[in-house]
Amino acid sequence: MPHTLAQINAYDRQAFVAALGHLFEHSPWVADETFAHRPFRDAAHLHAELCATLARSSRALQLELIRAHPDLAGRLAQAGRLTAESSREQATAGLDRLASEEAEEIKRLNAEYLARFGFPFVICARLNAKDAILRAMRERVTHAPEAEHDTAIAEIGKIAWLRLLDTLKT
Amino acid sequence: MPHTLAQINAYDRQAFVAALGHLFEHSPWVADETFAHRPFRDAAHLHAELCATLARSSRALQLELIRAHPDLAGRLAQAGRLTAESSREQATAGLDRLASEEAEEIKRLNAEYLARFGFPFVICARLNAKDAILRAMRERVTHAPEAEHDTAIAEIGKIAWLRLLDTLKT
Repeated sequence: MPHTLAQINAYDRQAFVAALGHLFEHSPWVADETFAHRPFRDAAHLHAELCATLARSSRALQLELIRAHPDLAGRLAQAGRLTAESSREQATAGLDRLASEEAEEIKRLNAEYLARFGFPFVICARLNAKDAILRAMRERVTHAPEAEHDTAIAEIGKIAWLRLLDTLKT
Repeated sequence: MPHTLAQINAYDRQAFVAALGHLFEHSPWVADETFAHRPFRDAAHLHAELCATLARSSRALQLELIRAHPDLAGRLAQAGRLTAESSREQATAGLDRLASEEAEEIKRLNAEYLARFGFPFVICARLNAKDAILRAMRERVTHAPEAEHDTAIAEIGKIAWLRLLDTLKT
């Protein structure tokens, strides 16, 4: 259900979290802790405050958020058990119709990435087509763990921005 | 002069603004208004709070910040009157050694952009080589004014991030 920014600025805490809790995967606490920063001038301001909430939180909590993300084209997708948002996003990138060798490579890279970092590969699928995602997986699996944590958080910020634009009536 | 994050978290307001005032072109007020949000967990948190300060500020003040930026490869550069940061950034992108037809096209697009939007074309030069900058100029000059304002603010955030990394001792 879309909301106007004026509505969001007027909601009580519960309605606010109900409207924005889905922006961060399985993590309504980001919206909840951002409630105190009302009113928001525009969508960009609201997004900046949400990202500041996330940046302010402990690395452990950030890690929990990263781990709340599904594998790309993974078992949850095959079982139809993604959140509605993740399902649409993965479809936009073409991840719901992979050739079998692509699906195999993604599966292998996902497993390698998870084994190396202890969290799944996170990328804003709506801003990257299938080929760009595969290139990013091959590249990022070689990075340092700290850098990948930061990259995952930055990608989560982009995902939240596009989900926010979907949520706001203009 | 580099600073550690621990130093930045311990500085008084004046020292804090002296250390970080240059992150936003000619606009130390962004650092000044972010002072209240100490302590900062890491560079990403500090950057997120700076960007939230900027997002929270009025469109008029944001416009003033955009207007504080020099033309790319423009008269200030030719006269050697850029800030130290802008000068290095433009050199990284190769804007200090343009072929004369490239210089002419940039000059023409700069003028067209400024006439259309009332503010200069802003891009994170360190993340874009000369050719990417020219492509972005040709494309962005066709956009809507509101969208270009938002893009300029987003680019200013990227510029500030790279300036912050230069400022922090690791």
